[in-house]
Amino acid sequence: MTERVADYLAGQKDAILDRLLTLIRFPSVSTDPAFESGMRGAREFLLDRLRAIGMQDVRLLEAPGGQPAVYGAWLGAGPDKPTIMIYGHYDVQPADPLELWHSPPFEPAIRDGRIHARGASDVKGSTTIAIETIAGFLAVEGGCPVNVKLFLEGEEEVGSPSLTGIIERNRDLLRADAMLSADGGGAAGPRPVLNIGCRGITALQFRLRTASKDAHSGKVGGAMRNALHEMAKLVASLHDEQGRVAVEGFEAGAAPISNALRAEAASLPLDEAAWYAEFGATPFGDPAYSVRERTTLRPTVEVNGMWGGYTGAGGKTVTPAEAHAKLTMRLVPGQNPAAAQEAVKAHLERMAPRGVTLAFDYTPGGTRAYTLPADHPLRAATAAVLRREKGGEPAVTRLGGTVPITTIFAEELGMDSLMFGLASPDEDAHAPNEFFRLSSLEEGLRLWPLLLTELGGMRAADFRRPA
Amino acid sequence: MTERVADYLAGQKDAILDRLLTLIRFPSVSTDPAFESGMRGAREFLLDRLRAIGMQDVRLLEAPGGQPAVYGAWLGAGPDKPTIMIYGHYDVQPADPLELWHSPPFEPAIRDGRIHARGASDVKGSTTIAIETIAGFLAVEGGCPVNVKLFLEGEEEVGSPSLTGIIERNRDLLRADAMLSADGGGAAGPRPVLNIGCRGITALQFRLRTASKDAHSGKVGGAMRNALHEMAKLVASLHDEQGRVAVEGFEAGAAPISNALRAEAASLPLDEAAWYAEFGATPFGDPAYSVRERTTLRPTVEVNGMWGGYTGAGGKTVTPAEAHAKLTMRLVPGQNPAAAQEAVKAHLERMAPRGVTLAFDYTPGGTRAYTLPADHPLRAATAAVLRREKGGEPAVTRLGGTVPITTIFAEELGMDSLMFGLASPDEDAHAPNEFFRLSSLEEGLRLWPLLLTELGGMRAADFRRPA
Repeated sequence: MTERVADYLAGQKDAILDRLLTLIRFPSVSTDPAFESGMRGAREFLLDRLRAIGMQDVRLLEAPGGQPAVYGAWLGAGPDKPTIMIYGHYDVQPADPLELWHSPPFEPAIRDGRIHARGASDVKGSTTIAIETIAGFLAVEGGCPVNVKLFLEGEEEVGSPSLTGIIERNRDLLRADAMLSADGGGAAGPRPVLNIGCRGITALQFRLRTASKDAHSGKVGGAMRNALHEMAKLVASLHDEQGRVAVEGFEAGAAPISNALRAEAASLPLDEAAWYAEFGATPFGDPAYSVRERTTLRPTVEVNGMWGGYTGAGGKTVTPAEAHAKLTMRLVPGQNPAAAQEAVKAHLERMAPRGVTLAFDYTPGGTRAYTLPADHPLRAATAAVLRREKGGEPAVTRLGGTVPITTIFAEELGMDSLMFGLASPDEDAHAPNEFFRLSSLEEGLRLWPLLLTELGGMRAADFRRPA
Repeated sequence: MTERVADYLAGQKDAILDRLLTLIRFPSVSTDPAFESGMRGAREFLLDRLRAIGMQDVRLLEAPGGQPAVYGAWLGAGPDKPTIMIYGHYDVQPADPLELWHSPPFEPAIRDGRIHARGASDVKGSTTIAIETIAGFLAVEGGCPVNVKLFLEGEEEVGSPSLTGIIERNRDLLRADAMLSADGGGAAGPRPVLNIGCRGITALQFRLRTASKDAHSGKVGGAMRNALHEMAKLVASLHDEQGRVAVEGFEAGAAPISNALRAEAASLPLDEAAWYAEFGATPFGDPAYSVRERTTLRPTVEVNGMWGGYTGAGGKTVTPAEAHAKLTMRLVPGQNPAAAQEAVKAHLERMAPRGVTLAFDYTPGGTRAYTLPADHPLRAATAAVLRREKGGEPAVTRLGGTVPITTIFAEELGMDSLMFGLASPDEDAHAPNEFFRLSSLEEGLRLWPLLLTELGGMRAADFRRPA
């Protein structure tokens, strides 16, 4: 039966691509209110599509302070079959800096087998694969091998501010035996890879002031604190020369990296020289760890934006009184997001000399790192599909990034997740000229039906763990 | 004879004010081509006025790439009398942000004895005083006590791009024994002050790169250099904790601060607590020096602007590959601008680790600091006038900022300068609601005739220094 669905989807390739391009054309940037109509457009497109393919109970789920999620279900497989929550998101990162794009970010351009557009890789491509897989089963077989609940978030790129509110309001609606995420994962490509976890995240923005107003740098230079100099000293204090985080208490609770974890990290080899070359960068980071370990098993503090003073054309002889920085911290298993955030905040406050005032703007807390338990049936089912399709034992890896929903669904709904997205790490997600491979679209439209079929061979009871 | 001229000018007060207001109404913003008609209007008004008062050889002086200067001369005092170049400028800073003005910037409004308008203080007020002083002598006495050359620049607010070109084309025309500047100085107010120099300046902008493109901070964080972290470390390395410049070779050539200089700096007392309070700042800077010394006798390195990464609303989890900074350096006597600039550049290049590339964007060189020699007759003449008019020995001070013309005329024409403007430091030059005091206009119309008379008591030979 799976072959029939996969063949059907292969035959629908052009129509599916068309729908993906339509979805991409909505500039659904969740962080910026100027893109509200793009957000609304993407939502309406998805609501229409879910209804058109025969999903039931299609609607928006929302809570104050955030962006609505698109929800739909098909529960016709019966109570003995597992109920799988399928996750994707329709919001995207901002496209700035626009001048670096070779084609407009929201006008998808297909070149050399790649769809170039903001959101193509992260994650409208894989989200479309998930939706079209369900559509394929419903069209060809009249039903899916498992019960399906589809949850398409609208605020993944801004840290899911209203997600717990949405869950609280819809706790029963959202119950499922496990979650399969179209975001994250490395299902694409020749090598079989199981993506079983991700780092957590917490964020902090702050403003630094050294005076109540900017001053003429000729008049005051030498006797007045310059907000940019002070910002530089604070940011410089966050890391040592090798990029190791130098913030007291930041790693509190982080589990030491066991030999088993190191072996797991080594199971997916990485050509480090090629990895750096791809970014046009040189090797960097804690020499005690491999690049894979640095980017998945170690926590980070990263300044994502920093600015102050005159940034226009030409010059202005100003001693700035104000500077700004945006930080995010990636967290590993064991770290508490609020505690890690507080450690960075306390470090900055401790390092700021008298005469420098800091004002923080942040949502307390964040998202813990997530790990799928080793004996979870999602792992066995996915490994089986990958073994058959790609051959060999799957490597086990983790995302360096964060898919907050994996943690939130685990904490709030007791639901474990596996990431099975088709995005590849080189597709410049969050950067100019983001792209998604047409070959990944095709591969996803084959792998997802196989995985749903494999899960349909399991019983719901297999997912109910002893309390 | 001076009393007659001063009395005459006092009697002409209303007509002089009218002419000043007319000059102010021309929106002569030199940096913005949209104000070309304002620039032209101001020029034509000044040409007409110089001709009307009986100056000779009235014309525009120009060179490619800049704004014309207005020139006029009166050389009837004879070859034994000194020839004094009188300097002012008719261009003004932009009036933005317009919404902060209490009355339109180019419609002068007189409130509480103050003329509120862009350019009133910087420097149409003091420029008008200089012109009207010459007018008074010519009207009442039929001649000035000294030979006069008037040079009214049109590009002071944009860094005088064509000034050296104008000088090269008019070297003989512009020869004079000394220069008296209506810009700079603190002649207004009860306290006698001699402003005898200013710091120099050089500038440097650079871009820092750590990779060929931005990356997702989740994917690469921990193993990829972050351009903002590297920028912070570089900028932090420019100063020690007390704000002292930590750049090797930067101070090369700077004369040590002698006891005489320290005494001179102390001659104009400064309430340091009040000074910091005015800026809403706390004390800062090299504890070995007073605030006056830090801001006039010590060189600085100031970051005027710094930026990189995501600076919009919300957040973006990016590891930036690029960061930018704009720097200016204030220089003290003895420092060579190109050498100081090169020292900062070399420091940044030396501090940048492998994997960090810097690209500099700068005009080599800059403007040296300027000091009027202690034994210069301009100093004696001005001190004598101030002693008689205000009582007590004048304090000697320097500008922390830079008036490039003083250095340029000294280097190009061997002409020393004294700044004798009537603007006060609290008049919000370059800021919204700039104003000029009517009392300063009256005071200038008394002090300038006295100073020209004092200079007229000297011989041209007094200004010719042994080669």
